[in-house]
Amino acid sequence: MGSLTFWYEFASPYSYIAMMRLEEVIGGTGLEVVYQPFLLGPLFQESGWETSPFLIYKAKGQHFFRDIVREADHYGLPPLQIRDEFPQGGLYGCRVALIGFDEGWGLEFSKALYRRQFVEGFSTSRMEDCVAVLEGLGIAGSDEIARRAGTDEIKARLRAVGAAAKEKGIFGAPSFVVGDELFWGNDRLERAVDWALKEA
Amino acid sequence: MGSLTFWYEFASPYSYIAMMRLEEVIGGTGLEVVYQPFLLGPLFQESGWETSPFLIYKAKGQHFFRDIVREADHYGLPPLQIRDEFPQGGLYGCRVALIGFDEGWGLEFSKALYRRQFVEGFSTSRMEDCVAVLEGLGIAGSDEIARRAGTDEIKARLRAVGAAAKEKGIFGAPSFVVGDELFWGNDRLERAVDWALKEA
Repeated sequence: MGSLTFWYEFASPYSYIAMMRLEEVIGGTGLEVVYQPFLLGPLFQESGWETSPFLIYKAKGQHFFRDIVREADHYGLPPLQIRDEFPQGGLYGCRVALIGFDEGWGLEFSKALYRRQFVEGFSTSRMEDCVAVLEGLGIAGSDEIARRAGTDEIKARLRAVGAAAKEKGIFGAPSFVVGDELFWGNDRLERAVDWALKEA
Repeated sequence: MGSLTFWYEFASPYSYIAMMRLEEVIGGTGLEVVYQPFLLGPLFQESGWETSPFLIYKAKGQHFFRDIVREADHYGLPPLQIRDEFPQGGLYGCRVALIGFDEGWGLEFSKALYRRQFVEGFSTSRMEDCVAVLEGLGIAGSDEIARRAGTDEIKARLRAVGAAAKEKGIFGAPSFVVGDELFWGNDRLERAVDWALKEA
């Protein structure tokens, strides 16, 4: 049985689209998926970008904002919303998701945070947004989760995730890693799954 | 009957892949395709890039050189070659192709120039490379074509193509334009064709 690691960034609409269709593409293949939330910001800074390249490069950004709407529609997702504030910060979402994968609700939380941002059009940058999502899912102990998300342990784990992303050559989101093979972009989900099944 | 304009850059492996599969994707739909060779360089310079972003951004480039080989294989094309010199200059290829579309051999020449670069692994940067391709195709008058390719008329037409690309919001290659709708990347070929058929 093969394995694939799905690297996703909460600010990334293409990561959202990949997240929402991943399980259907995996289907009954038996492929194991490792969900890995991460932050693109530190990697972008190494390229000299202080914000999303979609804001820096105007023509690329203009296509991006149109393309994500078309792609969401293509894959049968609800109309995609982008709030005035793009990109939304993914820091708190990542910290909470790390805890969630320890506790068994990481995937459910990640999808709900994406829906809050890209379907409902709400902010997801703040811890209070994450708390609202936890409460909406009926996950108990959101105060304790918020406290733990601010601890040095979680901060160190998120830094380690960032170091691992860099080591694997990741430069954008979503990314799919199968062994040493890196696939970038929602458009490569099927390729990565095929590769993992071939390697298995 | 709908229409789609295919913007391609001779230095771009993804443009090559799109070119090689375009006719099969169009199939019997009756869709009209306008072939538009252009130069990305002047557009890249507006982003502050003096060469391919795949050379500037190392991690992105590492994925690119692997991905184009996988994608060529995925689409059943011959093993994709990248010479040491990447990107190859597309200036002379563009000028000759413009003449070719006047004279009815532009598409045949464009495909042969791509094969020379990405299948055979030869240089395509120089006029003599274009001449070799013309002679390989049995197109008569390569001396006269080479002369005409250096005229102010052809240079002005190529500048006008660049201005049109910018006006349409094009920032990368390949691009597909259907009315006011811009699709970027080989991965969007099917979307662009579907859009054109829907609009028709």
